Amino acid sequence: MAEPLFQKVTLIGLGLIGSSLAHAMKRKGLAGHITGSARSNKTLKTALKIGFVDSVFEDAGQAVEDADLVILCVPVGICGTVCEQIGPHLKKGAIVTDVGSVKAAVIKACQPHIPQGVHFVPGHPMAGTEFSGPESGFAELFDNRWCMLTPLPDGDQQATDKMIEFWQACGANVETMTAEHHDVVAAVTSHLPHLIAYNIVGTADDLESVADQEVIKYAAGGFRDFTRIAASDPTMWRDVFLNNREAVLEVLGRFNEDLSQLARAIRWGDGDKLYETFERTRRIRQSILDEDKSKD
Amino acid sequence: MAEPLFQKVTLIGLGLIGSSLAHAMKRKGLAGHITGSARSNKTLKTALKIGFVDSVFEDAGQAVEDADLVILCVPVGICGTVCEQIGPHLKKGAIVTDVGSVKAAVIKACQPHIPQGVHFVPGHPMAGTEFSGPESGFAELFDNRWCMLTPLPDGDQQATDKMIEFWQACGANVETMTAEHHDVVAAVTSHLPHLIAYNIVGTADDLESVADQEVIKYAAGGFRDFTRIAASDPTMWRDVFLNNREAVLEVLGRFNEDLSQLARAIRWGDGDKLYETFERTRRIRQSILDEDKSKD
Repeated sequence: MAEPLFQKVTLIGLGLIGSSLAHAMKRKGLAGHITGSARSNKTLKTALKIGFVDSVFEDAGQAVEDADLVILCVPVGICGTVCEQIGPHLKKGAIVTDVGSVKAAVIKACQPHIPQGVHFVPGHPMAGTEFSGPESGFAELFDNRWCMLTPLPDGDQQATDKMIEFWQACGANVETMTAEHHDVVAAVTSHLPHLIAYNIVGTADDLESVADQEVIKYAAGGFRDFTRIAASDPTMWRDVFLNNREAVLEVLGRFNEDLSQLARAIRWGDGDKLYETFERTRRIRQSILDEDKSKD
Repeated sequence: MAEPLFQKVTLIGLGLIGSSLAHAMKRKGLAGHITGSARSNKTLKTALKIGFVDSVFEDAGQAVEDADLVILCVPVGICGTVCEQIGPHLKKGAIVTDVGSVKAAVIKACQPHIPQGVHFVPGHPMAGTEFSGPESGFAELFDNRWCMLTPLPDGDQQATDKMIEFWQACGANVETMTAEHHDVVAAVTSHLPHLIAYNIVGTADDLESVADQEVIKYAAGGFRDFTRIAASDPTMWRDVFLNNREAVLEVLGRFNEDLSQLARAIRWGDGDKLYETFERTRRIRQSILDEDKSKD
């Protein structure tokens, strides 16, 4: 068997992403030893029982001792606190990475706590399901999905290269970009769609002229896809919106302007404007399907 | 073989819904003879070649001669014109139905052209894909989906009963309600989600700070489901919005109010408000999954 990419990997947080990463590492033998840490004792027990970690620690500081790679798989809102906690225990030469959907805010919160000689390589695998918890993970979650890395301007190139190798071995396609650009791209392709989905499901549930049961019964009319997105982990998403505020509010402002135009076209019976908008979005779908084909 | 439910059925419009209905009828032998009519000669030729119709007519009036059931499978915006055209050719005792996503406007446009002794039973099968045209139809499209019938207050009960039997034989679950209630239910479960999806895809495409290629590449982050919905037939959806204007603008108003609240919570860092909203919508998803299970 080939030498593992990292001798010891520590996962802080053992939910969907943490447990999936453990499964993906085991699939390819990427880690000599996988240690897990989580706030809840029940999660630690479940992780050991399923067997995707080799050892567990309640204390995150203890968990990262001797680790060659530490992956923060916690909501972005607590990444800073976790780094503060583990900072003094990190081994010289270790790599710290995260999986948060927001990058600039996470870097701002974490960077001050990363000691000299430890390499911080922020990352964001664009993969997920509407399920959460240590039972929800699976090795294939990252297969053929994108993982964005946002290396710091003065970051260590070798550490970045090693993380590219790591994510590719986990099945992902890797792209690097600045944290700021990442946050705008994520705001439009992921954060805004989630916000809209959460919102529309709430609006439907509130309409007193339509029974709740009807909303559920006739969900197949288009509403159903939104409810799946709107079932995503509430804590994770609360933190995403609080930590990518500016980019989200910016694209939301654009969205609202465009929606006002469509509403106006409906009110004034401007069929041409509606048709033109709907025709254009159809072409974008076609581009996505073409992109899929080019991957096969 | 059992007697077919209708001796002669005429389909006006041979796109996704028309062709799927033909396949569904053939699957169960519901029609002695299926005639099709469409505006484009190419569509007629394709329909005959695929074989889901037994005969075709360019002229809708000719097509409905002797028909026991006439199904309008055209965009809701032209239902009235089609009824005006076929009215004089309808056989006494025939049933006319439609498949439009809007009911009050269709009834208003069609009813004046339906002759005495012909029964109009408006309907709306809640089924579709993002594909259109005569090649896109398949017999299973309506299986286990809802079909809403909105019989007129003074409508013929026997005709309604026969349409319930027809749709059930096509695989659908049938529900009856008033046209007005239908239009609000459809506005929230289908029309608003489509409008939002069309809008967000357009907004994303316009953001000059994010390359088009990036929007397409990273679509898996949540955006992808929206692009599928936003690839639906532009003509059909233009007509839906123009013809269900009031209900759509009403639920859109609610949606906008709720979205402003969420935007405000993001701007002011109100995590509790965000968490509470996201937690509630997650429960609605669970209800939908429970409903699915109860159907099995």
